[in-house]
This record gives sequence, C-alpha cells and structure tokens, in this order.
Amino acid sequence: MDEIRGDDAHLIEHRLDSQELFKGKLLHAWRDTVTLPDGGTATREYIVHPGAVVIVPILDDGRVLLERQFRYPVQQVMIEFPAGKLDNGSEDRLACAKRELLEETGYTAREWAHAGELRPVIAYSTEIIDIWFARGLTDGGKRSLDAGEFLDVMLATPQELLDWCRDGKVTDAKTLSCALWLQNVLAGSWQLDWQAQSAA
Amino acid sequence: MDEIRGDDAHLIEHRLDSQELFKGKLLHAWRDTVTLPDGGTATREYIVHPGAVVIVPILDDGRVLLERQFRYPVQQVMIEFPAGKLDNGSEDRLACAKRELLEETGYTAREWAHAGELRPVIAYSTEIIDIWFARGLTDGGKRSLDAGEFLDVMLATPQELLDWCRDGKVTDAKTLSCALWLQNVLAGSWQLDWQAQSAA
Repeated sequence: MDEIRGDDAHLIEHRLDSQELFKGKLLHAWRDTVTLPDGGTATREYIVHPGAVVIVPILDDGRVLLERQFRYPVQQVMIEFPAGKLDNGSEDRLACAKRELLEETGYTAREWAHAGELRPVIAYSTEIIDIWFARGLTDGGKRSLDAGEFLDVMLATPQELLDWCRDGKVTDAKTLSCALWLQNVLAGSWQLDWQAQSAA
Repeated sequence: MDEIRGDDAHLIEHRLDSQELFKGKLLHAWRDTVTLPDGGTATREYIVHPGAVVIVPILDDGRVLLERQFRYPVQQVMIEFPAGKLDNGSEDRLACAKRELLEETGYTAREWAHAGELRPVIAYSTEIIDIWFARGLTDGGKRSLDAGEFLDVMLATPQELLDWCRDGKVTDAKTLSCALWLQNVLAGSWQLDWQAQSAA
C-alpha cells in the first residue's frame, strides 16, 4: 500500500484536538479539529467503527449464498452477502468470518481465501470491511441469529447476482464490491489463495 | 425494484418512536425505537444523509478521471472517483454530478448516462449515492474546490484501475462499485443510455 507518500503533504490533515460527540448503543461519534495542508483549520466529524467482515460463500454447484434482510436506515429489504462486525473490535478476522457465516446461514466452509478490503464510507466512518471467500460449504442446518436479527438465506447464480447489480435490485455497496471480486475471480483474472481450514 | 414484498412481514421493522441524538456540522444522528417482526422492540441508531453522486468520467482516449484525496476518518490518501453531496438535499442529481465534476476536476462533459445507485452503509446511514457516467470531456482548466478541500486529479486506464482494485490500492466502496459498472459497460454486458447535455 503506497497511499501515504512523502510528497502528499499538500493533501494531509493533522489532528489538533479530538472531542467525543456521543456514544450510543451502536454509534460512537467524534469531532476533531485538524490543521489543513494550507495551514488553516477545519472540523472533521466521524463514526468510530470496530471493523467488519463480508463473506462470498460459493456452493459446490457454483451458486452463492446471499441474505435478504430489512435494513432500517434505508427502509428496505436488501440483498447482501453475509457480513458482521468484529467482536470487541479485536476478534481475528477469519474467525469472525467463520462465526458470522455459521450464525447467519448455518453453513461451515472447508476452504477460505482472503480477497481484499473495502472502506464503505470514507467521508465519515473509520469502518474497514475485510472481504473473504468461502467454498466447500456444508449446511449444518442450525442458525443462531443475534437478538433482534431477522434475515432470510437465499441462493443465486453469479449471473443472477450480476444481473441484479445491473438492474438495481442489489445496491448494497459491500455486495457490489464483492460482485466485482466474484466476477474477476470466476473469470480467472484475479487469483485467490485458498486455505484449507478445520471446521468452524 | 421489488425488495419490499407482501410476504416480507417476517423481516420488516416499524418505527415506534424517533429521537434526535445529535446534529453536528456534518453528522445528524437519530435513535429510533422499532417493533421487530416477532413483536419485540429494539433500538436503531443511524445517520441521516442528504444523498450524493459519484461520477465515472471517461476521456476520449479511454482513460478515466480519478482523484487522490486525504480522507481523515481513515487517515489515508484514497483514490476515488469524483463525488459529492446534494446541495440542500434537494439538488437535481444530474445537476449535482455536473457541478461536482466541474468544481473538483475542472472538466465538463458533453454526454451523461445514469448507471444505478449504491447504498454505502445500510447498517447505519440513510445515504444513497447515484452513479453517473460522463464522456465527451473537456478540461476547462479551472477548479473551484470547497473551503478545506484539497485533492489531486489523476488519470488511469480502466485496466490500471481494476489492477488497483485487485491489489488493494483502491478500497473505497463507491469506487469499487463503479469499477464493477465500468468493467461491464466496457465489455458491452451492461448498457448505458447516453444523453447529450448542454455545457454544465
């Protein structure tokens, strides 16, 4: 990663002061005062997030596992890949991916591969989502959803998923980003380093 | 769009009460109490956002216009497509796309096409980003950045952009989502409805 370069001084902001705005049950917000590249100052408000994972689970028949879940902020049932937050912000990311896949779908996977990461909202959140692929799936038949969590598990072919991305039926950014990965992995243009894993 | 279906009652949450958590200079946060599909209650905290646009500007030589910008919440210089928020939350989306492209890059475009939309963070924000493509670009040579805004304009071939998505040099979710659109539009798999426009 070479985003921070020595000649980026004309872009970089530095923290002068940091103030907690509020700490809710979910949202933890801060307002920082920063020095700008031109020497001026500005305020930056943002959510501190513990980080998350998203999983692209591929069945032996080539279909992928997706979820349908009502997302209250957007007031819609969204089609998305399984995902969840790191426990305590310090959980191992692969362990988190295995746990979320099992809890939300009942599936375990024999092989896992780390694909990349995405930052959903760089303007106002620290959140990073780690992207994992899973294959060699087995349905254990038993989900254990969190309290207050309701979702359907569904299957789609990669082509169906891509059609839905084109047609506006899939608009979740992490799922669109995973669709980019899936399309290029299936085409052989992007390689994954698959690792055999013991059962989750 | 058929995400809300009559048989989705087992997924849908309904607002009981809404409380403003915080209204900052940028962030406007709410906490709602909702009824769950099983009759229980839960709280949902989220950011209310006015909406935004992102632009995929394609030059006559096939290269795309990108920006390098320090994003304070993630403490990195990020490579991203030009984007910005709707003025007053009510600005026409195409007008916003033309304005942001001109202000941030100095370019105008003769043709525009609406691609789709993305929702960056469905767990805790109402934000919707409209995706626009622009071609027939002319560099007017004059940017007008907002106060406190510092960014570099850069060019890349679509293949370079896709390589950066694969290699982790591009991790911004809206840009990854636009890369999915760009790849499929250039391959001819996804069609756009280009419209000639008067100069912005």
